[in-house]
Amino acid sequence: MEEIGFIELLEKKFNMSFNNKEIIEVALTHSSYANGRKNIKFNERLEFLGDSVLQLCISEYLFLKYKSKPEGELTKKRSLIVCENSLYHVAKKWNLGKYIKMSKGEEITGGRERTSILADCVEAIIAAIYLNFGYEKTGKFIIENFEDIIENAIKNRIIMDYKTKLQETLQKDGDVSIEYNLVKYEGPPHRRKFYTEVCTEKNVLGSGVGYSKKESEQNAAQDALMKLNVKVSML
Amino acid sequence: MEEIGFIELLEKKFNMSFNNKEIIEVALTHSSYANGRKNIKFNERLEFLGDSVLQLCISEYLFLKYKSKPEGELTKKRSLIVCENSLYHVAKKWNLGKYIKMSKGEEITGGRERTSILADCVEAIIAAIYLNFGYEKTGKFIIENFEDIIENAIKNRIIMDYKTKLQETLQKDGDVSIEYNLVKYEGPPHRRKFYTEVCTEKNVLGSGVGYSKKESEQNAAQDALMKLNVKVSML
Repeated sequence: MEEIGFIELLEKKFNMSFNNKEIIEVALTHSSYANGRKNIKFNERLEFLGDSVLQLCISEYLFLKYKSKPEGELTKKRSLIVCENSLYHVAKKWNLGKYIKMSKGEEITGGRERTSILADCVEAIIAAIYLNFGYEKTGKFIIENFEDIIENAIKNRIIMDYKTKLQETLQKDGDVSIEYNLVKYEGPPHRRKFYTEVCTEKNVLGSGVGYSKKESEQNAAQDALMKLNVKVSML
Repeated sequence: MEEIGFIELLEKKFNMSFNNKEIIEVALTHSSYANGRKNIKFNERLEFLGDSVLQLCISEYLFLKYKSKPEGELTKKRSLIVCENSLYHVAKKWNLGKYIKMSKGEEITGGRERTSILADCVEAIIAAIYLNFGYEKTGKFIIENFEDIIENAIKNRIIMDYKTKLQETLQKDGDVSIEYNLVKYEGPPHRRKFYTEVCTEKNVLGSGVGYSKKESEQNAAQDALMKLNVKVSML
């Protein structure tokens, strides 16, 4: 029973004792495992809850620690911290892949390494901890486990050049011209928001908003990469 | 001092006593009020925090109350509850517009009735309550104040026909042809995700994801309305 191994690992490493171990087992169960099996709960509902717990915890941490940073900067930092890549990074630290229950089919096609499966599972585990111990203890757990990611986000060490990544991705299959079109902007000069679309000759690939043209372009490129299902490693 | 009036109103109506009244005053201060004035704190940072508090509270409520609903449905219900229109509805119930500190310019151009200003202020007030009383009490406050909205969302009484609204909006200025293009789909048949873009002849107006074509089209239309800054009243 590998998932027991993970529960023990969690309990030991983070000094906690679960009343409700079943929830952690559910958190470690991917939806594919429930296909064709009866009465199996899987982690999607927990992921829904865990995402919000993580979001509040990181928001509060940034809000309290960076009292002079404006909202726009806090939002930017948070989006670097609360994202699939960060969750994936945490999953890898925990060696989570080997503990997840999934279907044989999912496993054969690389499920144990799949970014989305690992990231979603981390969110589900956060929810399971939240339901066992409440917000305060879960907050400490999150900060402890995301410390390096938070640190890197704060110090701008996370290099997220999505435009370069998008260009590399598209040009794998030959020369493609990519254009960034400013669609509109709004707001007063000191808080102006820019809306950009990234396009090839034929298609709009993504759109992004930002407080500078550059930022809106990066966000459009990130959106395009997500829509193209390209994983961007950030750590 | 009208903002004192609002603090008293909150304290009386919801039986709470603020230790830190300054935070509520900040929550009631729009950024425009700080322009040209020194050392004025305004509510944008609180809004950043309050949004996450609200999101977790509603997620937890839906998660615990609807144990048999899948994640997709919870997410859908949540997006009906946690959105600008709901927040605006709450602000109107509180008669919040008259208590917000804003610049004369903002006021003259209808600031006290502006959806975004009112919605953001409700989020900031939620954050101020959270910082005073913590998560549990704030959760009760939120559920109490969003009860009718939650009820309507659950019972599908919130009619959100974004496609109709988008068509009406675009055709105000003459005949416009609107197309919904399925860009791609992914996932197994029982959990398939659809990606749709809504376009006019010239432009992509928005994009949306959903668990049915219809849902992805509604979401694309909603995205387009947001990008066009069109307010959709839902209550």
